[in-house]
Amino acid sequence: MIGIAVLGFGVVGSGVARLISENAEHIREKTGKEIRIKRILDLREFPDSPFASLLCHDIEEILTDPEIAIVCEVIGGCRAAYDFTRRALLAGKSVVTSNKELVATHGTELLCLAEEMGVHYLFEGSVGGGIPVLHPLSSDLALANDILRIDGILNGTTNYILTRMKEDGMSFADALRGAQERGYAEADPSADIEGKDVCRKICILGALAFGAAVPCDRIPTVGITEVTLSDIENAERLGCSVKLIGSAEKDPQGRMVLCVRPCFVRHENPLAGITDVFNGVLIRGNFVGDVMFYGRGAGSDPTASAVAADAIRIAAGIAEPVHPWRDAPQEKIGDPQSIPSLFCVTVSTENAALAERFFGRPDRLLPSAGKVTLLLREKIDRAELNRRIAAASSAFSVSSVYEVL
Amino acid sequence: MIGIAVLGFGVVGSGVARLISENAEHIREKTGKEIRIKRILDLREFPDSPFASLLCHDIEEILTDPEIAIVCEVIGGCRAAYDFTRRALLAGKSVVTSNKELVATHGTELLCLAEEMGVHYLFEGSVGGGIPVLHPLSSDLALANDILRIDGILNGTTNYILTRMKEDGMSFADALRGAQERGYAEADPSADIEGKDVCRKICILGALAFGAAVPCDRIPTVGITEVTLSDIENAERLGCSVKLIGSAEKDPQGRMVLCVRPCFVRHENPLAGITDVFNGVLIRGNFVGDVMFYGRGAGSDPTASAVAADAIRIAAGIAEPVHPWRDAPQEKIGDPQSIPSLFCVTVSTENAALAERFFGRPDRLLPSAGKVTLLLREKIDRAELNRRIAAASSAFSVSSVYEVL
Repeated sequence: MIGIAVLGFGVVGSGVARLISENAEHIREKTGKEIRIKRILDLREFPDSPFASLLCHDIEEILTDPEIAIVCEVIGGCRAAYDFTRRALLAGKSVVTSNKELVATHGTELLCLAEEMGVHYLFEGSVGGGIPVLHPLSSDLALANDILRIDGILNGTTNYILTRMKEDGMSFADALRGAQERGYAEADPSADIEGKDVCRKICILGALAFGAAVPCDRIPTVGITEVTLSDIENAERLGCSVKLIGSAEKDPQGRMVLCVRPCFVRHENPLAGITDVFNGVLIRGNFVGDVMFYGRGAGSDPTASAVAADAIRIAAGIAEPVHPWRDAPQEKIGDPQSIPSLFCVTVSTENAALAERFFGRPDRLLPSAGKVTLLLREKIDRAELNRRIAAASSAFSVSSVYEVL
Repeated sequence: MIGIAVLGFGVVGSGVARLISENAEHIREKTGKEIRIKRILDLREFPDSPFASLLCHDIEEILTDPEIAIVCEVIGGCRAAYDFTRRALLAGKSVVTSNKELVATHGTELLCLAEEMGVHYLFEGSVGGGIPVLHPLSSDLALANDILRIDGILNGTTNYILTRMKEDGMSFADALRGAQERGYAEADPSADIEGKDVCRKICILGALAFGAAVPCDRIPTVGITEVTLSDIENAERLGCSVKLIGSAEKDPQGRMVLCVRPCFVRHENPLAGITDVFNGVLIRGNFVGDVMFYGRGAGSDPTASAVAADAIRIAAGIAEPVHPWRDAPQEKIGDPQSIPSLFCVTVSTENAALAERFFGRPDRLLPSAGKVTLLLREKIDRAELNRRIAAASSAFSVSSVYEVL
């Protein structure tokens, strides 16, 4: 019998406990091992839960139990989760988690510690909920391919909000309220709508793909709070959907360039069709071309599936260790402003002719309700775009700017 | 140095050789191993190829070379490929392949032989080209989840033909000719357009998901040769796209049910948006829900990516063996005709009222050019549907029937 401890009996933790119990027979058939939830750590009591008898309140009970080989940390955040993870690894236990904040912030240290201790630190559930994406990225795609680029819709809450704005014509505020009523957004939605959650996830994807972690505070991050209904309509008329995209790529100098911002995504791009709370991760390799992984990016059961799969692979003795990445050194972090991209800019109709002087003759020009949106013909970098906007500012102002993917 | 032999220097074989050479530095960084193409077996000479010096014509040269640990079989078919694979495994070499016909036909035996010899037989490239799908299915999703169902667009040629019919209004014959001119379809396209290629791939997916292989001749298979432009238009007006779908599921008695047929796929289903030569595999697990894998399903470079990744994992010592499946016993093979599904049937307009008597009041009824398409309200099994069609046949005939996904 291989004992598992669950730290945090919330949405994901209860899903992990249920999965390991309900699918126990299936897991035994697949792996030949008996895997059992032995302890659940939480500050609260859950007298009505079928797992009530397993609840404990002292991490020491778990750390000193020789039958517990694997710890599932699903507390979240960087305080208790960080402390308990370190101590579990130091006690020679493998740790699996869905805690993207902890992996993005302390992944370098925790992966090295796991390697030193000869145990695993796995975190498939931290990106894309139940979608297997980190494991296929590191153990299939990145082995054979030079990874050129990753673009992801990595947050279900914001994708739900953008979908409601587009499909139901709701304002951002109304769509956010609807998401909160359905339990898709938290009472304090800032980590989602300001892009911080996506920032952590693209940090992890970039670290796995390129071997080095860019700290979150070095990843320029713009959320969706400024996205308006008219932006969404403009996108639609250009054959695009507005999506919050986390991107990671290497610039021609080999520096890692990561950023998070709402983009106009063309309908030919498979990310454009991903609606509601679904996530999608598009990975480009130098041989495989574009590959996309799609599924529910959050929720109790899907995330439990990813966390449990990591635990089961460890228990079955078939887990590959995640190769520790390093903290990206200063000179290896590139500037997203220096990457040439396609942009579109929106100005007042009366300034359309003037705008062409600053931004060049556009590929397409879309008039609507006193405004006109110019899809620029040539790729330019954002620094150059900002110079042109500044130069134009004495004559007219630009009301919105979007990168086009 | 770990030596690799490539059997068959065709489209995929040359891609594998190029990948291992061009990405050699990258592979060394990722795995710490030096992996090199040591021999290429082909009947032909390739005097102008950069790999000309590695060509050989006798399998014995490879089997007796102690430096060659891994053999990439990309010959195709079940003749030489079967013989060489057996002999390579018996010689203690691991084999990786993209040969779906061989895996579907002799996978049970070859997996057992690999297990006996303590080597690997891996075949990620046999399904979905470069998309990592077999490895995530068996080593992530199927470990934690009971797999409920798999539906896939598994053949790029037929998906390209259906896309051209829909988007350009071409007939099947013209679209097929276009696919041949672009090199997407072979001179003899029957394995693709008659669904045999999909049949082999769904056999492999079913075997991995459920642990037993249903022989291809027990998988009812219908290709796309009878799909007409008016079927495609009917689908469109019902909010669907016609797609050739391979499906695997378990019936309520736990029997495996596999089939291949063109379906009307609703636009809400993420498979509906997969166009041109792309493939997609939608997998439903009891905890993870629906997950989809998407990418180029064929071609030299993508398939080489999958074959090479298998080889690199073996070389790096991180490959998990594929657990041998068994041949599905008779009593474990269910009948697709007994699975309740949604259907739509098309009849002549003058028989619309009569059709309702046989098929019930439809959910939606779409008239067009002398015909009417009824989307049936209730799920029924195909056997029952066929009984009703037979019962109706004295009064009128049904011009087409599609399952709706």
